[in-house]
Amino acid sequence: MRELLGTGVSSGVGVGPVRVVSDTVPEPPAEPFVGDPLAETERALAALEAVGRELESRAQTAGGEARDMLAAQALMARDPDLAGEIRIGISAGLTAARAVYESFGFYRELLSGASDYMSARVSDLDDVRDRAVARLMSLAVPGAPESDEPYVLITRDLAPADLALLDPRRVVAFVTEEGGPIGHTAILARAMGIPAIVSCPGALELKDGERVLVDGASGRLTVDPEDGQISRARAAERARAEAVGSATGPGRTKDGHPVPLLANIGGPKDVDRALASGAEGVGLFRSEYLFLDREVPLTEEQQIAAYREVLEAFPRVVVRVLDAGADKPLPFLPPAAVEPNPALGERGLRLLRRHPHVLRGQLRALAKAAEGLPADRLRVMAPMVTDAEEARLFTAACREAGLMQAGIMIEVPAAAIRARDIAEEVDFFSLGTNDLAQYVFAVDRQVTSLTRLQDPWRPALLDLMAFAAEAAVGAGKGCGVCGEAAADPVMACVLAGLGVTSLSMSAPSLPLVRAALAAHTLDECRAAAAAARAARTESQARQAARAALPALETLGL
Amino acid sequence: MRELLGTGVSSGVGVGPVRVVSDTVPEPPAEPFVGDPLAETERALAALEAVGRELESRAQTAGGEARDMLAAQALMARDPDLAGEIRIGISAGLTAARAVYESFGFYRELLSGASDYMSARVSDLDDVRDRAVARLMSLAVPGAPESDEPYVLITRDLAPADLALLDPRRVVAFVTEEGGPIGHTAILARAMGIPAIVSCPGALELKDGERVLVDGASGRLTVDPEDGQISRARAAERARAEAVGSATGPGRTKDGHPVPLLANIGGPKDVDRALASGAEGVGLFRSEYLFLDREVPLTEEQQIAAYREVLEAFPRVVVRVLDAGADKPLPFLPPAAVEPNPALGERGLRLLRRHPHVLRGQLRALAKAAEGLPADRLRVMAPMVTDAEEARLFTAACREAGLMQAGIMIEVPAAAIRARDIAEEVDFFSLGTNDLAQYVFAVDRQVTSLTRLQDPWRPALLDLMAFAAEAAVGAGKGCGVCGEAAADPVMACVLAGLGVTSLSMSAPSLPLVRAALAAHTLDECRAAAAAARAARTESQARQAARAALPALETLGL
Repeated sequence: MRELLGTGVSSGVGVGPVRVVSDTVPEPPAEPFVGDPLAETERALAALEAVGRELESRAQTAGGEARDMLAAQALMARDPDLAGEIRIGISAGLTAARAVYESFGFYRELLSGASDYMSARVSDLDDVRDRAVARLMSLAVPGAPESDEPYVLITRDLAPADLALLDPRRVVAFVTEEGGPIGHTAILARAMGIPAIVSCPGALELKDGERVLVDGASGRLTVDPEDGQISRARAAERARAEAVGSATGPGRTKDGHPVPLLANIGGPKDVDRALASGAEGVGLFRSEYLFLDREVPLTEEQQIAAYREVLEAFPRVVVRVLDAGADKPLPFLPPAAVEPNPALGERGLRLLRRHPHVLRGQLRALAKAAEGLPADRLRVMAPMVTDAEEARLFTAACREAGLMQAGIMIEVPAAAIRARDIAEEVDFFSLGTNDLAQYVFAVDRQVTSLTRLQDPWRPALLDLMAFAAEAAVGAGKGCGVCGEAAADPVMACVLAGLGVTSLSMSAPSLPLVRAALAAHTLDECRAAAAAARAARTESQARQAARAALPALETLGL
Repeated sequence: MRELLGTGVSSGVGVGPVRVVSDTVPEPPAEPFVGDPLAETERALAALEAVGRELESRAQTAGGEARDMLAAQALMARDPDLAGEIRIGISAGLTAARAVYESFGFYRELLSGASDYMSARVSDLDDVRDRAVARLMSLAVPGAPESDEPYVLITRDLAPADLALLDPRRVVAFVTEEGGPIGHTAILARAMGIPAIVSCPGALELKDGERVLVDGASGRLTVDPEDGQISRARAAERARAEAVGSATGPGRTKDGHPVPLLANIGGPKDVDRALASGAEGVGLFRSEYLFLDREVPLTEEQQIAAYREVLEAFPRVVVRVLDAGADKPLPFLPPAAVEPNPALGERGLRLLRRHPHVLRGQLRALAKAAEGLPADRLRVMAPMVTDAEEARLFTAACREAGLMQAGIMIEVPAAAIRARDIAEEVDFFSLGTNDLAQYVFAVDRQVTSLTRLQDPWRPALLDLMAFAAEAAVGAGKGCGVCGEAAADPVMACVLAGLGVTSLSMSAPSLPLVRAALAAHTLDECRAAAAAARAARTESQARQAARAALPALETLGL
């Protein structure tokens, strides 16, 4: 019996045969070809023809946009100019695989330099190339598998396009060799309710058809499990469900240290779900979600109504003012110029400083929405704050609007490093772990091939969170967390141990986090935090924290 | 007599009348217009026509690409559809300025969503809009001034396009209210040999025609200077030049602590200039510069020849392996996918991990180039390293190629925060302050409007550099600096005080840095570093460091 250990990101138990999907086809080595060039050319063209046929047949069964896309790809595979290039390459001494690879390179360059639309087609072209090269090198063909039986899907990391093609009734679990807890695979698995493990080294070496047990809570994958193991996993899953069900009331550690558990919401439509999960308030109201896909801002009255509905539902609500820019552009908040790296450009408070009337208007609407309610119910915070000066400007704008609780998101590394300077200027912090990870590791969240670098367990990120929490404690201010990291029950204990004073997450994650906190004392959480920070890698940090939290086992975690 | 203080980035003394250039025109307030809509419409169209005429006349005197660009802008100003939109806006109750502003907004959206080429035209459109709005609001018109007399140019921050239009014989000094020491204004001013001050608060409030004295070494701007002041500034400039001239030999503090002074180069062509400036070696050989604009890599023989030429010229040479990706794409090192934020994508070592044969080939060529030379002459380092695991991989690849000095650039914040883990895996660090600033402040170096956030004097960046230097000292390894920060003589003293063991910069900056180091003891440098880190803002940090370095005055700094 073999066992692999990764990061459980969507709890539940799944059992089934594995389907391994290779999403990366290596570059064929540039070794000289010795043999018959004519036969080798035949091999190359036959592989491309097979790819063309396969794509065409998939196009016929697919519908809508997918059909057109697949048909266009089939045409690429059969392009006569491409065949000519390949012929020349092989006669010049390349292998079939290498000739195919290099011939696509020429078209790739052409497309990359063309318009946005065409350069987005580069990945389609790469897909055709990879399918042909995989055939020629006898490797697994990339893409989501077609299967009539339920299976456990194993990939390096799923591309969003592949995810869209999957049939959720057939997939009993996801396991990715790479990827991270904040990647789209993790988020989608939770949304679909499918057990999932990410960052699971060795997963890609599993053989197609091997039967495995996937425990999405503990992150354990067992190869060829015995019946006893399966029933024990299912029992643990039930125990977990019971423990979760019995943990009710406000968030607190076993010894009663309160850690309010809050919900992340996008608007009034999310209120019921948050209440049903026992949220004690809203820790992140992403106000820009009210405005997306609108040409003009909401009117003041529309804004006030939306805020008021949320404020009346909870005793505490943290509203983040418009976080526009980067991947969430708003037409009425344009940056100064076209930006080569929007995530490093004018976004959040930087944009609001450029358009101060928009900020003033939103703060005024918030103040009106809170009229007549207790003074500490509404808390307002700014995204993308870099330093104390920006924090001071924002607090002043809030005070001017009559808002008495002004805070900032800590998501720029500089703000975490210099949190002690900023703490004097604001009433609270909220750690935005997703963006903080993006910047401290210099890794775009949207680049699938680099998600391994974004794991919130990486010690450098733990250090930054500790700097911010220590600064807040020192200044007697609150420091919440509102990134995906807060939804990991083991990380939630570590965050409490670091001094974080509230945790906000998407509503479905609240019960498990509540149970994990209730099962451990604050001292245990502190020990787990110290152990994680003393580690050198993300997996060591995760293991060290688990080892310091004795009750995880009883929760089936 | 008034005095403004900024950051001197290009030394020298300039005296002349100021020309203030406004590069940002505020958004006109959306207040209702009361008055005659027909007359208001006339005003709006007359302003656009004036802008069209002005651009057309500039097009006629300009040549080449600039002419076509200006002529196209003149057409935009006279677009009849635009005039129709404005007419409608004013009749609906907008002011002329607001109607112009909003009407451009529609076209702006159209262009932004179009191809790369068209979206790059958005800034041209904004320029036309700003010129018209400025006229309607009686504000200074943006753009480089036309003047027959020598003048001191004052701007918020110069756009690269404006810089290209300037006549260097007419500009006696640059002063920018914003911008930073690593911005393009600073780099260009040094290249053009024009005295310059950046980050100079209050500069934009100077009146056109006021006579000022600009001292690019000390960062002081004096309004309406007396003759005595001018002659004193010129004398100080001469003293500085003498001090610089008399500081020769290897870099060291006054009390003899060695701080080798090295040159940043792009290839053999830069060797002579580095030798002439007294460089003791090369601290950064940007090897990707040998490969830019090439479809295929250099052959091994070509690489070996280039490396050998540099290795024979200096007793120590640090070669950075290919730093491709982001703003320096290389056709044979493509990333896995089209990246929305290339600076946060696959670049540097990340790309080389995807294309390991390229890395192996380069390391092999480097090893061959160093054959027969002393073992410590060649040092090799990797760009964009995130953690100890990546550092270990790189060191192993170097050892395998027979290279015994393997280091990494510290430019990802996580690498600085966890430098103590990484120090065990490598032989040396080199701090890349430009990228480190880009990531720790989450600010693209290419976004002009945010350069104020990238000042290397910002304390969060000083903290990161200190983390890395302390970790290196603790492990008995070297920690150099090879970003623009090293070229600032005051910062150079602070870096020595932080524990940095060598400084690498573009050759022209070496003499002044050598003089500044030679004038101060290591303890003074340490005191300056501690004072700068204790500050809360970049200007406080700069002032605090200066106050701790008594001999700056005698150097005219």
